[in-house]
Amino acid sequence: DVVPITRALISVSDKAGIVELCTYLASKNVELLSTGGTAKKLRDAGLTCIDVSDYTGSPECLDGRVKTLHPKVHGGLLGVRGNAQHEKDMTDNGIGKIDITILNLYPFEATVAKGAAFEQCIENIDIGGPSMLRSTAKNHAFTTIVTSPDQYDEVKATIEEHGGTTLAMRKRFAARAFSLSASYDSAIATWFTKELGEESPVVTRVYKPEFPLKYGCNPHQKPAGISSLLNSNLPFTVLNGTPGYINLLDAANAWLLVKELREATGLAAASSFKHVSPAGAAVAVPLTDVECAAYEVTPEAAAKLTPSALAYLRARNADPMCSFGDYAAVSDIVDEDTALILKKEVSDGIVAPGYTPEALEILKSKKGGKFIVLEAKADFKPDSVEYREVYGMTFCQKRNDVVITKDHMTKNVVTKGGLSALSEDAIRDMIVASICVKYTQSNSVGFAKDGMMVGVGAGQQSRVDCVKLAGRKVTTWYLRQHPKVLGLQFKQGVKRQDRVNARVRYIEGDFTDEERTRWEAQFETVPEPLTTAEKDEFMKQATGVTISSDAFFPFRDSIDHASKVGVSYVAQPGGSVQDPQVTQCCDDYGMVMSFTSVRLFHH
Amino acid sequence: DVVPITRALISVSDKAGIVELCTYLASKNVELLSTGGTAKKLRDAGLTCIDVSDYTGSPECLDGRVKTLHPKVHGGLLGVRGNAQHEKDMTDNGIGKIDITILNLYPFEATVAKGAAFEQCIENIDIGGPSMLRSTAKNHAFTTIVTSPDQYDEVKATIEEHGGTTLAMRKRFAARAFSLSASYDSAIATWFTKELGEESPVVTRVYKPEFPLKYGCNPHQKPAGISSLLNSNLPFTVLNGTPGYINLLDAANAWLLVKELREATGLAAASSFKHVSPAGAAVAVPLTDVECAAYEVTPEAAAKLTPSALAYLRARNADPMCSFGDYAAVSDIVDEDTALILKKEVSDGIVAPGYTPEALEILKSKKGGKFIVLEAKADFKPDSVEYREVYGMTFCQKRNDVVITKDHMTKNVVTKGGLSALSEDAIRDMIVASICVKYTQSNSVGFAKDGMMVGVGAGQQSRVDCVKLAGRKVTTWYLRQHPKVLGLQFKQGVKRQDRVNARVRYIEGDFTDEERTRWEAQFETVPEPLTTAEKDEFMKQATGVTISSDAFFPFRDSIDHASKVGVSYVAQPGGSVQDPQVTQCCDDYGMVMSFTSVRLFHH
Repeated sequence: DVVPITRALISVSDKAGIVELCTYLASKNVELLSTGGTAKKLRDAGLTCIDVSDYTGSPECLDGRVKTLHPKVHGGLLGVRGNAQHEKDMTDNGIGKIDITILNLYPFEATVAKGAAFEQCIENIDIGGPSMLRSTAKNHAFTTIVTSPDQYDEVKATIEEHGGTTLAMRKRFAARAFSLSASYDSAIATWFTKELGEESPVVTRVYKPEFPLKYGCNPHQKPAGISSLLNSNLPFTVLNGTPGYINLLDAANAWLLVKELREATGLAAASSFKHVSPAGAAVAVPLTDVECAAYEVTPEAAAKLTPSALAYLRARNADPMCSFGDYAAVSDIVDEDTALILKKEVSDGIVAPGYTPEALEILKSKKGGKFIVLEAKADFKPDSVEYREVYGMTFCQKRNDVVITKDHMTKNVVTKGGLSALSEDAIRDMIVASICVKYTQSNSVGFAKDGMMVGVGAGQQSRVDCVKLAGRKVTTWYLRQHPKVLGLQFKQGVKRQDRVNARVRYIEGDFTDEERTRWEAQFETVPEPLTTAEKDEFMKQATGVTISSDAFFPFRDSIDHASKVGVSYVAQPGGSVQDPQVTQCCDDYGMVMSFTSVRLFHH
Repeated sequence: DVVPITRALISVSDKAGIVELCTYLASKNVELLSTGGTAKKLRDAGLTCIDVSDYTGSPECLDGRVKTLHPKVHGGLLGVRGNAQHEKDMTDNGIGKIDITILNLYPFEATVAKGAAFEQCIENIDIGGPSMLRSTAKNHAFTTIVTSPDQYDEVKATIEEHGGTTLAMRKRFAARAFSLSASYDSAIATWFTKELGEESPVVTRVYKPEFPLKYGCNPHQKPAGISSLLNSNLPFTVLNGTPGYINLLDAANAWLLVKELREATGLAAASSFKHVSPAGAAVAVPLTDVECAAYEVTPEAAAKLTPSALAYLRARNADPMCSFGDYAAVSDIVDEDTALILKKEVSDGIVAPGYTPEALEILKSKKGGKFIVLEAKADFKPDSVEYREVYGMTFCQKRNDVVITKDHMTKNVVTKGGLSALSEDAIRDMIVASICVKYTQSNSVGFAKDGMMVGVGAGQQSRVDCVKLAGRKVTTWYLRQHPKVLGLQFKQGVKRQDRVNARVRYIEGDFTDEERTRWEAQFETVPEPLTTAEKDEFMKQATGVTISSDAFFPFRDSIDHASKVGVSYVAQPGGSVQDPQVTQCCDDYGMVMSFTSVRLFHH
């Protein structure tokens, strides 16, 4: 299996380490063949090398376009060693064996990225390189194809140990060479087709495996892994922990949500994800005293919170029962304040553009060291289209890269007062709610107040059902500020999350027998129930809430139901045949409605 | 831009049409160069062609491995026409211009598919072909690369019209050639890496665009399209209409759901999808008389329904408000009965393994001819792994191809009575509910009864919330059979879907003022309300319902809530630290619970 090396063909665009490798080969009496810049580099280093033109005896012509496309080169690479006829043919035709090819291809994307003109890009397409690569890889039973500087050490070590290259290594290198050739031509084909403005007859997506996952959506879905697009990289760096498939889906959506909130509002933003939809999201707007009480933070402490901490505190408190075990995202550098809030919560991980050293220390120690910490690359630019395979169909679409701005909320206010009825705060909340539904599984609606989601409805199949589902969350959020809820006197030692849950269950009131017993045991004195009448009375004060919908409201019923939870502002794409009735309905309740013209389905 | 053709290089594995094309070229006095089998084929047809070995003057050697890898060939392809130095070099070195290359590559996958041994596969890797292809494509300013018989007509027509090939055509052909080269080496790289049992340094997914979509998830997401994996095909044939992005996502999930239900139960199955989750799903189990009344079908008509029709009638009636505008799937041939049921419903499309001519006629005329009809290929085998790009991360996982069987439901019955407490009908419903949640956005739970989903909870972020959400659907489904609901006397002319919705709203009872007025107008006499007490009383008879959960129940609260809607059977993966308490809870209610060990998250 070991093939000794006597003659090497070298042609590299990336010259890192090439002198060292060739110096080593020369020390083993390997004859070096080379061309152009590579030959010069080797000679400058004092090595002897033969120019390929001299070797083939074919004069250099056509600006070197056909230098290596010669039987003496390819015969030397392709001849089957030990095959009597091949050996004779080689001898008869003066074809010497070439045992190793060391080459790499100048990345075609790099040429394109430099902004080269069409003709220059074409000129840069390497013809001789891929041919030598493929000949050598095909004949790997005898020849070695080296395509990257990161393989040089192994080449040296193997020759040193075995006196030549091993079959196992040659096979591995050959497989990699074909991958390189495939991705090189994929890049050309993709660019070329794009230049023509045509549908490509074949689309190749070339991925670089980055890390394996323990499993996919479920433990029985193995193998699973994460790749980047070739010549790109991942949007996140893993600073701590081992993210899983769903963690990373959460992280992608949670991060995009806060990034866009930040850009649209200029405020620090946070989100709290569960199962690829936000349980909550918010921008940094100061808390009222009653909110402080509901979220168990003193007004003094709240006043000192950094914007990141404030945003996450709000995001987590939209629906703190659902946020249990969330995946968090923060738009700004995570500081100690934010980390200390997260420390108290049960959470799976976080993504943010950066961390202070103190914050990182705190987060790394969560979950026995298993808390996932991802650093988002702030300037990451994903490809504009995304591919997704489902049951043998590959779905391709432009990413949903619409940027939600103030303009969407102000350009088409269809209710009575027109634009003048919209406050800056209302516009901000419309933006917050709309960006939130953009990253919520459809159908979705979201309710916002004071820069904070107070009810997100995900994954529903009827719009009015979705409004009701999210509306119940808004009611629960409001009622957490009811004096009777704030006044609940827990026994000493009842844990934070248990207090959170107990308040919500008190509000919902639909205890099962066993649960009631357990619930009551958390109090010295069993609290009086919160009656429906008390709830209704309290909800009358609800006002200034914004609802955003990922698609138009087909009927007025959604607005009717929204009116029950204090909605004053409505953002929706518009476009239903019933738009006039829906607008009339908003006018009936004195709501302000904007048609954004942007549908935001998300799947 | 037009380049006249004087010399052609031909080397094809697919010889279809090659004689006709070359006969045409010969008639235009084009000199034909060729090799091996292609040359023989042309000579057999009476054409004159020069063998490449004779043309280069290089003797045939190494079993023909290097025949075309020669400066006279590649110089003839790569020389820049009109460049003085190139022209001189060509003349000096006896390099004649080659204007067109006609070649195709024997698909590498075909060799692999034949079950060829490793060495044979390697032997089949074409070296000369891709080199000529790439040289010709690079120099497309002057040379024409033809890679498929489907281009021959255009070549002839263009030469006929223009006296040569046009630049526009040469560019298009060159782009296609690089795509072919990319996919050829992708196939080699993929196979090679698999053979080595290694993680590939690069993964290439090669897609064949099948049809464009008007847009992706939203109208502003353009371009969008559907591709198949190269050398595979799509799982569906479009028989009518123009499916959109979300339609096709629905169709894939809806079809897999009914296919697996069919295989697991042996009964015809149907599902009704909205926003990539089932609103309902069912297998063909006969209806009770009261169900007939609730679904507006006479017992006589119901008794005559075909299994497909019965299954869809049930699926559609799980949650008929949500199913409005659904995407339907049926496991068996769609007959006239089924089509007539669909005809009455507002629906977007259907997928099924086939249609009777009568059924297809009916369906094609729905929605003004726009009803989408997909035929599923029953024997379609998707690739075992799926790739999905999200914000620059490519997620790869094994498909969720676990087959849910009776065994999952019977191997680990953890409640008191053990396996003996499980009837065949209960096992069937556990299977139905579990396959349904497998294709429901997570978190999800599903309730089944009599082979039919009666409450599907999709996309929730807390398990107990999901149980409550789906439980409300079960309650509504049950109450549709309440005598007061069945007795609602609508005015003449109230439409079917309005009757359906009116009954559900009567049960839900949370009318807004405007809605109540509109609702009441549908009746001659305003119906008495259905009181909470009446509802509770009626729900006491609820029994024999099965719940399946896509992940374990973390606490007993979900079971407590499930007990309120007649649950007798529970299927869930198990694995919570609270499993003993959850099991005890089931025992308290006399429920039978199976641990399936299979988690079914779906995103």
